[in-house]
Amino acid sequence: MEYYSRQISNLIGELSRLPSIGSKTAQRLAFHILSMPKNDVKALSDAIIEARENVRYCKKCYTLTDDELCPICKNESRNHRIIMVVENSRDLAAYEKTGKFDGVYHVLHGAISPMNGIGPADIKLKELMTRLSEEDIDEVIIATNSSLEGETTAMYISKLVKPAGIKVTRIASGVPVGGDIEYIDEVTLLRALEGRTEL
Amino acid sequence: MEYYSRQISNLIGELSRLPSIGSKTAQRLAFHILSMPKNDVKALSDAIIEARENVRYCKKCYTLTDDELCPICKNESRNHRIIMVVENSRDLAAYEKTGKFDGVYHVLHGAISPMNGIGPADIKLKELMTRLSEEDIDEVIIATNSSLEGETTAMYISKLVKPAGIKVTRIASGVPVGGDIEYIDEVTLLRALEGRTEL
Repeated sequence: MEYYSRQISNLIGELSRLPSIGSKTAQRLAFHILSMPKNDVKALSDAIIEARENVRYCKKCYTLTDDELCPICKNESRNHRIIMVVENSRDLAAYEKTGKFDGVYHVLHGAISPMNGIGPADIKLKELMTRLSEEDIDEVIIATNSSLEGETTAMYISKLVKPAGIKVTRIASGVPVGGDIEYIDEVTLLRALEGRTEL
Repeated sequence: MEYYSRQISNLIGELSRLPSIGSKTAQRLAFHILSMPKNDVKALSDAIIEARENVRYCKKCYTLTDDELCPICKNESRNHRIIMVVENSRDLAAYEKTGKFDGVYHVLHGAISPMNGIGPADIKLKELMTRLSEEDIDEVIIATNSSLEGETTAMYISKLVKPAGIKVTRIASGVPVGGDIEYIDEVTLLRALEGRTEL
């Protein structure tokens, strides 16, 4: 990029290292940043540094937070006897957006994937088991992805948790709302058929 | 976003203020940043601040740079008698990527747009005229966008520059390479017809 001066090239380079930011987007972002008021640029830069400096796991559910406990684990009005197990903090956010789940979460930070060398010890599974033994839990809802890794993880957790006498459920798999059956893969259609409910 | 802790929410918020970064992308970027090595995060944050602090216009062509002159204006091996006029620094970069233009540039930082209240005095047009009167220029190539604003600006510049006896050209408008005639708008097709060349 010898047509950009060094610092501008450097900024574009740093931005394009971020996921899903190609070189065109990085250029657009860089020139936008260069045109922003200096205060806003400082706010952006500070937010990046501050969040990264202070990020840690919630002591209870292991989601990323900047405090000892995350806002959900701190919230006394939620049902702390129902735990939804998710793969990462973004999945937690996705369920929170539905506004219909009032239990708490447990974030695994991954899923079991022998192909990628990720075993049960590489995700926050031991932490889940410790939590189940220490707290009074009525139900564990497994909301890992509907992928090979997510399903493997769900099976594994279910085998670990069931002997403890805790109810274990799995979120339903099927045709997404608004989905066009014509374009949906066979495995999903089969799942939808297997999981059919009486009307 | 009360399901994210304050600093994480803040980071997502700052990122989502950037153009073309929706809330989903901002979340993905934020969690990526939280997982990056601290050194890389510092490099990103520094690049943002450093580039913004030092950005200025090239004294000659008005592209954004961090030095008195941009790398292109500094380059003695380029043809400084041919100036390509572009709307912004990204358009300059786009032409540089072709690797086939060895002249220099002039960056207008906008285009004349009466609808948006942008007149000739709001873009670097006076600066272009000063440059043309001070330097020996053989040709001015107008490479503003092929939009209403770009065309207006091109006409305006051409009327200013021609009386000075300098050759003024406009980049060709027509069917893009690989373009499917079936899907191209009528105005472009008409332009392509008008601009036809003998084989």
